[in-house]
Amino acid sequence: MANNNAALNRVFHALADPTRRAMVARLCRGPATVSELAKPLSMALPTVLQHLQVLEQSRLIRSEKAGRVRTCHLEPVAFATIEQWIGRQRMVWEARLDRMEAYVKDLAQKEAKHAK
Amino acid sequence: MANNNAALNRVFHALADPTRRAMVARLCRGPATVSELAKPLSMALPTVLQHLQVLEQSRLIRSEKAGRVRTCHLEPVAFATIEQWIGRQRMVWEARLDRMEAYVKDLAQKEAKHAK
Repeated sequence: MANNNAALNRVFHALADPTRRAMVARLCRGPATVSELAKPLSMALPTVLQHLQVLEQSRLIRSEKAGRVRTCHLEPVAFATIEQWIGRQRMVWEARLDRMEAYVKDLAQKEAKHAK
Repeated sequence: MANNNAALNRVFHALADPTRRAMVARLCRGPATVSELAKPLSMALPTVLQHLQVLEQSRLIRSEKAGRVRTCHLEPVAFATIEQWIGRQRMVWEARLDRMEAYVKDLAQKEAKHAK
């Protein structure tokens, strides 16, 4: 649970930044080198590398170096962590809505009986 | 797009903290007062209020005051913002996987023909 909490912290934090989301969106289309990822961004390379580090720590991406070129790949499984968390919350609130609906229906039926 | 980006920043940031996720999980079960939300947490009230402020700013929750009691409610629609974003990325990478699969199949068929 603690581990899962830490993973959730990292993935939500990684995606809370528009530059990092743009990098993830780019990598959804296929692997890219650090230079390719940096090209559309108007920021210094060290800043780009910092963003990539946050993404790697969250396990949303992985990278490998061949010679002087580092290539980044998406790791879609990290999305599952947060999707599962949201899914669990959704189950709870939908169950609550169902119970409320059943209760209101029941009340309405009792009210209709009294009115007869 | 800029507005949507700002909303995504806020929701992802709000959910990047385990205390705020615990508050959201509690509110999925139904509305709760600030004291009820603070009870299971071992932290000072100002810290609790700060977390609630971040959640309200992200529109994951809303709150209303009646007399001296503030009650918080979940706003599940804010989840949709990030679910839609993830869904869009998923469409892109799944389309890419489909194309790769088709390409590999095509290569294998050509290879089989040559082998005959």
